[in-house]
Amino acid sequence: MSNALKLTVPDGVPFIDFEREFDFPVAEVFRAHKEPELITQWLGPRGTNVDIDHYDFRSGGSYLYDHTGPDGVSYAFSGIFHTVRENEFAIQTFEFSGYPDIVSIEFMNFEDLGGGRCRLRGHSVYPTMEARDGMAQSGMESGLSDGYERLEEVLAR
Amino acid sequence: MSNALKLTVPDGVPFIDFEREFDFPVAEVFRAHKEPELITQWLGPRGTNVDIDHYDFRSGGSYLYDHTGPDGVSYAFSGIFHTVRENEFAIQTFEFSGYPDIVSIEFMNFEDLGGGRCRLRGHSVYPTMEARDGMAQSGMESGLSDGYERLEEVLAR
Repeated sequence: MSNALKLTVPDGVPFIDFEREFDFPVAEVFRAHKEPELITQWLGPRGTNVDIDHYDFRSGGSYLYDHTGPDGVSYAFSGIFHTVRENEFAIQTFEFSGYPDIVSIEFMNFEDLGGGRCRLRGHSVYPTMEARDGMAQSGMESGLSDGYERLEEVLAR
Repeated sequence: MSNALKLTVPDGVPFIDFEREFDFPVAEVFRAHKEPELITQWLGPRGTNVDIDHYDFRSGGSYLYDHTGPDGVSYAFSGIFHTVRENEFAIQTFEFSGYPDIVSIEFMNFEDLGGGRCRLRGHSVYPTMEARDGMAQSGMESGLSDGYERLEEVLAR
């Protein structure tokens, strides 16, 4: 599967990087990151329910949503969008209610590959090595991997 | 000078940490970070002029200001406040117009030391080691050091 998620957890620096290609135009993949009614259909691992309080994907906007897993337990995720450039680039902060005040900053590049394909690259930066290691061990990889497969399914509909 | 700025640039991780005590109550030092009309009197090195477009020091707020140096050259600084807790804590993003999209995230702790004194601790996190090294070499230390001395002068008035 050439579109598989590639996740990198580099030694010694508090980063997580990922890369994922899509057989969809960049405008479609961007739209799936922008419109709350699409977000709720793909964000997070399979089996979770997303309940959005607000999700305002523009420079200076903010977001707050809950994830409820199959066990009925809910977690909140919140942050602000420092930069959003249509079909191109976004910078956002990210906070998980289980670790209050441990806020990461995430950079997302949306790249047109031509032929109706695109590449998404992410760079997440954590305030401590411990926070990065904890996130890497929390199931982030399977959550992202599931989420992007679901995103493809949403766009295919 | 027991209130001198202590700045730390750790090896191998993209952080800059600082610590600074003040002979003023925590509420006063917090207020100097909150009110735009005080900010313009101390933020940045001596000899710079601060022109605030907006500065809304609350969770979800944002800021944009220009620094104009003695040479007449202006630079913009902008970001958003992810978290602001009165007299206690703030998390903000930080972008310098000279390096667009190289955005750091900064954590500030305001700590009451009793006896009308307080301690400010900052933790800045950069998206690359190069960005951190560049910031550390840019005169950040003297800028911060000057700024906090000016802050004391403003509060002493």
